[in-house]
Amino acid sequence: MDAIVVRRGETSPTVADLPRPDPGPGEVLVRTLRVGVDGTDHEVIEGNHGGFPEGEDLLVLGHEAVGVVEEADGTPFEEGDVVVPTVRRPPVEGTNEYFERGEPDMAPPEDCRECGIDGAHGFMSEYFTAPAESLVPVPENLAEWGFLVEPVSISEKAIEHAAASRSAFDWDPDAGLVLGNGSLGLLTLAMLDQRGYERTYCLGRRDRPDPTIDVIEELGATYVDSRRTPVTEIPDAHEAMDFVYEATGYARHAFECIEALAPGGVGALLGVPEPWEFEIDGGRLHKEFVMNNKALVGSVNSNVSHFEAAVETLGEFPAWFLDDLVTGVHDLGNYEAAFAQDETTIKTAVQFSQI
Amino acid sequence: MDAIVVRRGETSPTVADLPRPDPGPGEVLVRTLRVGVDGTDHEVIEGNHGGFPEGEDLLVLGHEAVGVVEEADGTPFEEGDVVVPTVRRPPVEGTNEYFERGEPDMAPPEDCRECGIDGAHGFMSEYFTAPAESLVPVPENLAEWGFLVEPVSISEKAIEHAAASRSAFDWDPDAGLVLGNGSLGLLTLAMLDQRGYERTYCLGRRDRPDPTIDVIEELGATYVDSRRTPVTEIPDAHEAMDFVYEATGYARHAFECIEALAPGGVGALLGVPEPWEFEIDGGRLHKEFVMNNKALVGSVNSNVSHFEAAVETLGEFPAWFLDDLVTGVHDLGNYEAAFAQDETTIKTAVQFSQI
Repeated sequence: MDAIVVRRGETSPTVADLPRPDPGPGEVLVRTLRVGVDGTDHEVIEGNHGGFPEGEDLLVLGHEAVGVVEEADGTPFEEGDVVVPTVRRPPVEGTNEYFERGEPDMAPPEDCRECGIDGAHGFMSEYFTAPAESLVPVPENLAEWGFLVEPVSISEKAIEHAAASRSAFDWDPDAGLVLGNGSLGLLTLAMLDQRGYERTYCLGRRDRPDPTIDVIEELGATYVDSRRTPVTEIPDAHEAMDFVYEATGYARHAFECIEALAPGGVGALLGVPEPWEFEIDGGRLHKEFVMNNKALVGSVNSNVSHFEAAVETLGEFPAWFLDDLVTGVHDLGNYEAAFAQDETTIKTAVQFSQI
Repeated sequence: MDAIVVRRGETSPTVADLPRPDPGPGEVLVRTLRVGVDGTDHEVIEGNHGGFPEGEDLLVLGHEAVGVVEEADGTPFEEGDVVVPTVRRPPVEGTNEYFERGEPDMAPPEDCRECGIDGAHGFMSEYFTAPAESLVPVPENLAEWGFLVEPVSISEKAIEHAAASRSAFDWDPDAGLVLGNGSLGLLTLAMLDQRGYERTYCLGRRDRPDPTIDVIEELGATYVDSRRTPVTEIPDAHEAMDFVYEATGYARHAFECIEALAPGGVGALLGVPEPWEFEIDGGRLHKEFVMNNKALVGSVNSNVSHFEAAVETLGEFPAWFLDDLVTGVHDLGNYEAAFAQDETTIKTAVQFSQI
């Protein structure tokens, strides 16, 4: 079967002919429909994140998949079920407490592998196998958008953890800010809208006309150009935020967002930057943290419960939003187009088969 | 009546003769038993924190009080009840949402006054008045230690908020670290012990023999000398911590503690430092935050529910701990001794009357 891989020593994806995998005990064989492409894929391809499976010289890419059960193999699934796989798998040496309690998303990096990212093959192949407990059913009418379940689940978890951090008092957020206007930022902005935030903002650094700014404004949110309004000036220019979602990976944002928060506010951090030393007014930030009861919550990955919530969320997005967000779904024969990025690209996917 | 005050332009406490206050509607007149002294009092005295009541040139000190109801005045209290007052009061211009919902601790500084600290008189006087809803009953057998309810309540809130931030997953903390071996640090260390932490640590910068190190070790905790083991090296020297409680006000600790946390760990920040610019490896800290699902929670003040929890906690502390922690209770006539600090001082109080 065909698979989209990155080979050791190379920095662009290629197609490889690999054997169709055989499902092991408790595993399901899935025929792949679509697999999304995101920033993590580009980092993996460029060799800046993740790694190859032990003893192998290529990695099958892709961690945002939707497919159809081809062989249910004695699991609770049935042939034809539309499913989405979670991303984390136990380490090669075996399972551990995080997987045993259904919270692989809370495992430290050394206690898990990530399909298509770190140490385990991904889903960009005509078929893949997955343990039944890592598959989440998706209604057939959402199959075409199912590759968005994984990114939405990332924000489901981050929003859940952020809200939990504010659950010891009466927290009723009105104003939310998303740092970053990539596809994850825009999905999260739509989620805040859906969750009843009265005023939402999205920060980017692009000039109009720009398709992401169009989506931001069609969602009723305010576009904040970081070149004109730095994060620390957002409270003066707009308002202090009950919730800030950082999806830029720009390390200054992780600390500056403390100043953008309203009293009792929380920032969710999702970016994964490289080491970078810089100066902060740590005294002022520390005091601000304390005197105004602020919080910061780091969040990575997501588990089955977040995937299930994401399926619900996805079903409630307006059709125009999904149409505008997904700027390209490309057949396997034209896979390079899904990895190309220009100013018209928001979210792309590779299509492996039809339902 | 006699009151211990700081006057505008002065930097040491003196005794003033003030009129005994008359309780207003819904207020209780309390005869003061004991009032504790803490680091905030010293900052107020030195003019580094808080401020005088509007239009006044002196501030009655003290925010850690225990007293006896002298005039219940139609409130649910009875004469002779032992009570502890909460610290925050509405601004001069009137109440607001935070007070209305019983969460004055979540108010930003501009939306509250703090008795004995900022804009409202404290409790270091022979009598004080307080709104009935700000008073928490204390069993008579705890009256002598009642001045510790307020500091314990500060940690009740911080621990509650920190645990809330970890409530979206299965968090079962074993290892806890307190940064700071002042009286608040030691009280918190005893609380972690009480709450079933298996291994506790307390960081300070003192040489043996030292009474705080003795208390730390009698609690079964490990003393960490920050001059030998900086916060960032604690995971290698000891272990990574599920919970870190920062009570030093040293701004570097607010950021360094991210590196001392175990995966899924949380740091509670309580110190109030001055502005101070310094360099951090923000990229590494940001990545650490995200990849290991860490959190930081700022916490200030406490509300009635935390005072009530603190009364329970106080009643469960071992007697030796309270005896060793409280190194001096001084009569009003010898109040200067309660503000003196040397290497044998841990916690002091001024005694205004006997039960």
